[in-house]
Amino acid sequence: MVGYAAGASAMYTAMAGMGYAGSSSYEGPLELEGDGNGASVLILGAGLAGMTAAYELGKAGYKVQILEYREKAGGRCWTLRGGDSYTELGGYKQDVQFSEGNYLNGGPWRIPTDHHAVLDYCKRFGVKLEPFIQQNYYAYLHNSQAFDGKPQRFREIQADYRGQISELLAKAVHQDKLDELVTDEDAELLVESLKTFGVLNDNLEYVKSDATAIYRGWAVDPGGGTDPAPEPSDIISLGDILKGRLWKDLLVGETIDHQQAIFQPVGGMDMIAQAFAREIGDIVTYNAKVIRINGTEDGVEATYVAADGGTEETTVTADYCICTIPFSILGQIENNFSGGMQAAIDSVYYDSSIKIGLEMKRRFWEQDEHIFGGISYTDLPITLISYPSNDFFSDGPGVLLGCYSWGAASYQFNAIAPEERIERALEFGAQIHPQYRDEFASGVSVAWHRVPWVLGCYGIWRDGEANYADAVKMDQRTLMAGEHMSDLPAWQEGAILSALNAVKRLHAHVTGAETEGN
Amino acid sequence: MVGYAAGASAMYTAMAGMGYAGSSSYEGPLELEGDGNGASVLILGAGLAGMTAAYELGKAGYKVQILEYREKAGGRCWTLRGGDSYTELGGYKQDVQFSEGNYLNGGPWRIPTDHHAVLDYCKRFGVKLEPFIQQNYYAYLHNSQAFDGKPQRFREIQADYRGQISELLAKAVHQDKLDELVTDEDAELLVESLKTFGVLNDNLEYVKSDATAIYRGWAVDPGGGTDPAPEPSDIISLGDILKGRLWKDLLVGETIDHQQAIFQPVGGMDMIAQAFAREIGDIVTYNAKVIRINGTEDGVEATYVAADGGTEETTVTADYCICTIPFSILGQIENNFSGGMQAAIDSVYYDSSIKIGLEMKRRFWEQDEHIFGGISYTDLPITLISYPSNDFFSDGPGVLLGCYSWGAASYQFNAIAPEERIERALEFGAQIHPQYRDEFASGVSVAWHRVPWVLGCYGIWRDGEANYADAVKMDQRTLMAGEHMSDLPAWQEGAILSALNAVKRLHAHVTGAETEGN
Repeated sequence: MVGYAAGASAMYTAMAGMGYAGSSSYEGPLELEGDGNGASVLILGAGLAGMTAAYELGKAGYKVQILEYREKAGGRCWTLRGGDSYTELGGYKQDVQFSEGNYLNGGPWRIPTDHHAVLDYCKRFGVKLEPFIQQNYYAYLHNSQAFDGKPQRFREIQADYRGQISELLAKAVHQDKLDELVTDEDAELLVESLKTFGVLNDNLEYVKSDATAIYRGWAVDPGGGTDPAPEPSDIISLGDILKGRLWKDLLVGETIDHQQAIFQPVGGMDMIAQAFAREIGDIVTYNAKVIRINGTEDGVEATYVAADGGTEETTVTADYCICTIPFSILGQIENNFSGGMQAAIDSVYYDSSIKIGLEMKRRFWEQDEHIFGGISYTDLPITLISYPSNDFFSDGPGVLLGCYSWGAASYQFNAIAPEERIERALEFGAQIHPQYRDEFASGVSVAWHRVPWVLGCYGIWRDGEANYADAVKMDQRTLMAGEHMSDLPAWQEGAILSALNAVKRLHAHVTGAETEGN
Repeated sequence: MVGYAAGASAMYTAMAGMGYAGSSSYEGPLELEGDGNGASVLILGAGLAGMTAAYELGKAGYKVQILEYREKAGGRCWTLRGGDSYTELGGYKQDVQFSEGNYLNGGPWRIPTDHHAVLDYCKRFGVKLEPFIQQNYYAYLHNSQAFDGKPQRFREIQADYRGQISELLAKAVHQDKLDELVTDEDAELLVESLKTFGVLNDNLEYVKSDATAIYRGWAVDPGGGTDPAPEPSDIISLGDILKGRLWKDLLVGETIDHQQAIFQPVGGMDMIAQAFAREIGDIVTYNAKVIRINGTEDGVEATYVAADGGTEETTVTADYCICTIPFSILGQIENNFSGGMQAAIDSVYYDSSIKIGLEMKRRFWEQDEHIFGGISYTDLPITLISYPSNDFFSDGPGVLLGCYSWGAASYQFNAIAPEERIERALEFGAQIHPQYRDEFASGVSVAWHRVPWVLGCYGIWRDGEANYADAVKMDQRTLMAGEHMSDLPAWQEGAILSALNAVKRLHAHVTGAETEGN
């Protein structure tokens, strides 16, 4: 409930405690010394973790094969386009009807500057990236219970909140109320800085003026020739902002995961998956549902059936295994891992999340409201509306991310049928954009608890301190990898870093370079 | 000296008072009622103001021709590319040696969301736009006199300054020191909001922690598998930030001219000029230096010679004239404007500005420092270093805007030869990026006081209240237009809005719909 109750900023701050947010320890392309001498490695799962491992091990002379449950590579690096069909757990089937070129990234959708590994693989594999607009000052902050339910422009709340808290602090310092907290030397500089930071006048006030208008916007906009002279806009009082709780989401774009610059692949996130699949070559067996994993001291054997309902069992063997199957699924697969590993698998639960893509006949957010990319935040269960960062100014239809909710807020969507989810998203979204009903064309939703091959969004450790050390050990010649095996869970970067780390340890083991504790 | 002494944020705030900053009064495509019935209009100058007027008048049935001093259209909407040659006043000639695809926008380089007219013409004329990254949290704030001259990452200063002022205010409110300034009702909410806005812990402190690391970055970055656990980074004390004056430029990206989303034309700003030139068709006489303007009650005649040194005079006549020649130049042209207009022309002076483009052999700012677009600010005379917002992740050479200074700081560059300007820009820039010397390939500078056809950067009114009303009136059948005739000086938006306003008034005059005061 953290996100829902306190706003997205607070959610991200709270998530730091869960390891959900961060930079990256990536140190550049992996260079393994020596080679695998033809040792064979079976990789379970062709998501980014599995394909990273396959790519790096293949380069180092290992014999690699991958078993993948789905009909294509990528895992949660997944883009839904017109013509795609998707059946979730429970049987609901959705046929995506988006126009050519439009898409919904069902899973990850942004690549922060800090995610050096993802960015480096994109560069090496020729995946074209474009800026993602996270923070748009024209976008809205919305509280259905404040300002008569009217959305407020981000830039007005941002400027007015910052200005008025700066005024309070500057006046307090100026009136010597903070002598215990601020040295005399700092006090003068502090007031000077607050005049700039808060856009205060010489009386240390944040007031309606030309100076504040250039941060929050004008009442009468500047023009040319004999157009009326510009007039500054009224400010929103601190009391109204506080009571409206619109400060909640001011900081979302400021975390290192959301700061400019931030990127997305041109054409959809799965361009990364497609590039990996191309680079690793023809080593993936698709439609393979693993039903048994049996490790020994000498090797691993895995047995699978056809994921679309076959019963014929096929068993493959290898010297080693890297398993990237989410623990939510792995726990249901027969195996002979150690007790420690079993406990680890049981101790990870998967968060709930829902994403809803809504195609609109025209880009009314751009044409009517001057919003080019970026995200509006709301207290409604949809949490946000994100505007596409591609094809700006296009006359064609565009896809809004019309809902992206986690935890509690997501359950009320997950529990209902896809067409009802769309209806709810439209109902909520229309409170922010009245054009919704007229412009809606089609929609699709991904309720992650119902995605058959992961049953959730990302792995959360109930007690990482107790169980992580066991999960990370080589167990019956198997190493685990995936976002759940990283300090960057839910991010592609975490999946890749965990795979690189597993590959290094596997290689050290094979070449005898293994060191204590690895 | 405002900009140099107080930082760019303060400069923009101060400039609001001069009208330099703002949104736009643009209300959508011009629709003139009735037509010009073949009345002829002579337009002086094929910059964006002149071409906007030509386009709209042409559509409304006027007979339009343009005289342009230069060999091409665009005026200050000007992009320098490899193979271009440019001779400034005083005779210095520069041959641009940039690689294919690289460029320097000599004049305007960014299009804010607020500049609705520019964006609308781009859309209508098919000018492709891409996001401009103004604010990059990985970019630097630099004070040569603080932090041992070492540049600091924007995100660290931003998070630490905001956090520590929030801590001070939250504690002051919590300790009831601000009872006179804050109501009891607001006080509790204010503290709660500051915990989010400042990333404060439950003791209302901004401290080294996982929570603050996700805003300012980690000391040990998160990884995967057995990578070391992440460790938060040390914070920079408020005292150090205050004494280092690095708060000065925190707000540059927050003005309505610099807020996300903000755009640039793909391939260079003059793609807009080229699109206008294409749309208006073959009505421009290039290389035409106007030497005399003679208006009567019935029409206007203008006489020109070849700008490249001809003496043969050619005189053209028209029913009306729209003059977009900068007043700095117009004041030197023989004319018979009224005394009021003469005074207006004399009362506008043109600001000084310098831009230096530096091509580097590789994008070391991306490859070594993770800076993709955005701007580093410094107290050095170069003012800033801006990283290209195009061709991210490319292996080829890139062009930095290695100096963009106004007023006092620009004079020390304007006064020296182009090769010395480059040398100085390298010397200063190397204090921020030591790679400068190894990577430098070639450079070009535009010292606006030496640009022959404008003699400065943009027009500033000494006393707009006294003179603007005369300048805006139709005088000897001539109307003035250009950025100097707007409340958005220095911006393309101002030039276009002034032209649209002039066109409307001219049309009202011709069709007899003129109203009092127009």
